[in-house]
Amino acid sequence: MPKFKTVRGMRDFLPEDAKAMRYVENLARKIAKLYGYKEVITPVVESYELLAAKSGEEIRQRMYAFKDLGGRKVALRPEFTASIARMVATTLRNEPKPLRLFCVGSLYRYDEPQLGRYREFWQSNFELMGSNRPEADAEILTLTNDLMQRIGLKNYWFKIGHMGILRGILSKEGVKEEEQNPIMQKLDKKLWDQALKMLEELKVSEKCLEILKNLIKIKGREIAKTINEIKKNVKDYEEASAAVENLEEILNLTFESGIRFEVSIEPAFARGLEYYTGMIFEVFVPELEIALGGGGRYDKLIELFGGEPTPAVGVAHGIDRITLAMEKQEIKPKLPKEPLIFIIPVGEDLRAKALEIASQLRIKGVDVEVEVMGRSLTRALQDADRRGATHAVIVAPKELKEGKIILRNMQLRTQKSMDIQSLFKEFSES
Amino acid sequence: MPKFKTVRGMRDFLPEDAKAMRYVENLARKIAKLYGYKEVITPVVESYELLAAKSGEEIRQRMYAFKDLGGRKVALRPEFTASIARMVATTLRNEPKPLRLFCVGSLYRYDEPQLGRYREFWQSNFELMGSNRPEADAEILTLTNDLMQRIGLKNYWFKIGHMGILRGILSKEGVKEEEQNPIMQKLDKKLWDQALKMLEELKVSEKCLEILKNLIKIKGREIAKTINEIKKNVKDYEEASAAVENLEEILNLTFESGIRFEVSIEPAFARGLEYYTGMIFEVFVPELEIALGGGGRYDKLIELFGGEPTPAVGVAHGIDRITLAMEKQEIKPKLPKEPLIFIIPVGEDLRAKALEIASQLRIKGVDVEVEVMGRSLTRALQDADRRGATHAVIVAPKELKEGKIILRNMQLRTQKSMDIQSLFKEFSES
Repeated sequence: MPKFKTVRGMRDFLPEDAKAMRYVENLARKIAKLYGYKEVITPVVESYELLAAKSGEEIRQRMYAFKDLGGRKVALRPEFTASIARMVATTLRNEPKPLRLFCVGSLYRYDEPQLGRYREFWQSNFELMGSNRPEADAEILTLTNDLMQRIGLKNYWFKIGHMGILRGILSKEGVKEEEQNPIMQKLDKKLWDQALKMLEELKVSEKCLEILKNLIKIKGREIAKTINEIKKNVKDYEEASAAVENLEEILNLTFESGIRFEVSIEPAFARGLEYYTGMIFEVFVPELEIALGGGGRYDKLIELFGGEPTPAVGVAHGIDRITLAMEKQEIKPKLPKEPLIFIIPVGEDLRAKALEIASQLRIKGVDVEVEVMGRSLTRALQDADRRGATHAVIVAPKELKEGKIILRNMQLRTQKSMDIQSLFKEFSES
Repeated sequence: MPKFKTVRGMRDFLPEDAKAMRYVENLARKIAKLYGYKEVITPVVESYELLAAKSGEEIRQRMYAFKDLGGRKVALRPEFTASIARMVATTLRNEPKPLRLFCVGSLYRYDEPQLGRYREFWQSNFELMGSNRPEADAEILTLTNDLMQRIGLKNYWFKIGHMGILRGILSKEGVKEEEQNPIMQKLDKKLWDQALKMLEELKVSEKCLEILKNLIKIKGREIAKTINEIKKNVKDYEEASAAVENLEEILNLTFESGIRFEVSIEPAFARGLEYYTGMIFEVFVPELEIALGGGGRYDKLIELFGGEPTPAVGVAHGIDRITLAMEKQEIKPKLPKEPLIFIIPVGEDLRAKALEIASQLRIKGVDVEVEVMGRSLTRALQDADRRGATHAVIVAPKELKEGKIILRNMQLRTQKSMDIQSLFKEFSES
């Protein structure tokens, strides 16, 4: 019996699943190129202090943290933004702005494993640094929509909010930022009653509680109508009003540019990470409860990490979650169908010749598998069939004496002998 | 001042370096496709027991090992083969053989950081499972050569040996496998005297010591001559003699198939991992002391991990080391030169139009950066220049009223106004 298995919450991706993962990763990389985001690679292992600095209490408690052999307290990254912010505060400090950065890789959180939520997961991450303007926010929304479109996802929507609304109200009510954070955590988990109870204990005004109860109920698909409703509610809070206006401008810019996607504007929406300061969003499909991706604006983080004050907005797309959504919506990666040749030497002394023909075909860009089990022709052909080979090339003594091989069409089950040169020609033209 | 930096031994890859990393990774993935290796993805975090089972004492001591929040003893993978062997012993247990598997990702060893040796490093890994035949070994050598060729590396050579030679001699001398392992570690590090001293203490015969001293001196570039010299030395050791014959057959098959690469046949060559049983090799370039890749045959590992007895041969290529070799040999990634358009709206109310044109161009496959800083036209154009934009598209009120934009050629410093439709046409044809 097998002695070993994957660690709880970790998993293997078999070939079909790995193919879907690389497909989404490559589409994300394509988007990065089209939008001018330069790829960087940051380490999986970072200092605990860095990752803990602004990630939020809940994520801190679920980090894979440990001491390395040198006694340093380190952790496996639970998200990319802290690492990117570190780079921008140090190595990339003097790069001209805006700075568009892309990265992709695995992340680690000690969550309770469930559908779509694993302890190791993959994200593609886009950060636009240096602009505090709404067109930067619009770009992040647009490229996320572009990715969803290219994958072919159906019926997805963007849940959109703005951290400035809630934080603006609470600040005016005298609730300090550190006191706000645990409340945001509760709102992130839709634990409305617990959040309101915490606010009651902090002695915010009756009016404030009333407004928050109203905001929690607002989930609008129509932009103008919903924005007006929020504006009416927060009109006595200047910062919150400015936040709503900022959100309105971002959405107007995005939709006036001709992009179309469904939105649900939710003013009481919060996200688990503490560093967001402006517009925030997540993307959903009806088939899954978890978000496929999310992001927002964080204008204070680079400074916190010792860099120049740098406004920033970004998004992370859950690569493995997107492949799960593809599965649910029965979307297959769009990959070209190409020939696959299976080469079979008939006899031990023809093995080198088979390897030679294989090499020549690969130079012409053809995928080739070589029989390496020393099986009979019949058994090797059966295996070629099972592996989905489109053709078999049989290297047999009689034909080879005349400089020929046998080319078998696996689908039609027909075969003919032909010059080796003709074989190369046939497949270099395919 | 910046507060945070990368953990010792870890590093960031800036855009130019990341581009080289992905270039090598993609070439390796191309090779995988051409040779029929299916990609799998395995977790970075594995059980300590699995990784420690057969990795060798030295690697065990340098693993990033820790307890997770559930109290499990886990470690960051120091190599891929244990994970792949686990899969083949479990999930892929009933897959028809041969099984060709490819994977790529980051690995972790607590080494003393030095040129080309970091605590986080990247490999592409190929495993061919189920065949004990020399054509399988030849395939692994060939595809490794193919990767080096496609990258364009110059003057590289394969250091080649066979674990069966040394182990065959020592077994006949009555040295048990567990006693052999530390000796192999010494040989791996070229600590010849220490290895010989350990053997003296184990009371091997004088003749054996004499033969080992001879083998240590052999480093042959000519296959027939070197193989004969080794054969003469080990003629009284049946297992060792069989090993030399196996090595000879692998090399003959490879070179008869028309592949050409430099070899250095070294019978006293050993590798740090304990699981190798047959042919072993590493690839070097003159500019670097460390190997760019290496592998070999390991016929016992799958069984040890609870699977069916499965002969196997594989190779790992050091992606970051290969990019270092490219740098030393001044080899640049061969990537197509494509247009990059920088779009500048002249005025706040033209931002949505700029975003719209950007979207349309991206649908046609053109890379586009949008001005998101609200800068003056002059400053935005300077920035476009610095970013290597080939063209700028200026969206200005006067031209737009006539359905036109201004297209500026950044190299020639010429510009003309044109229809938006003509712009799309010009770039869909490029």
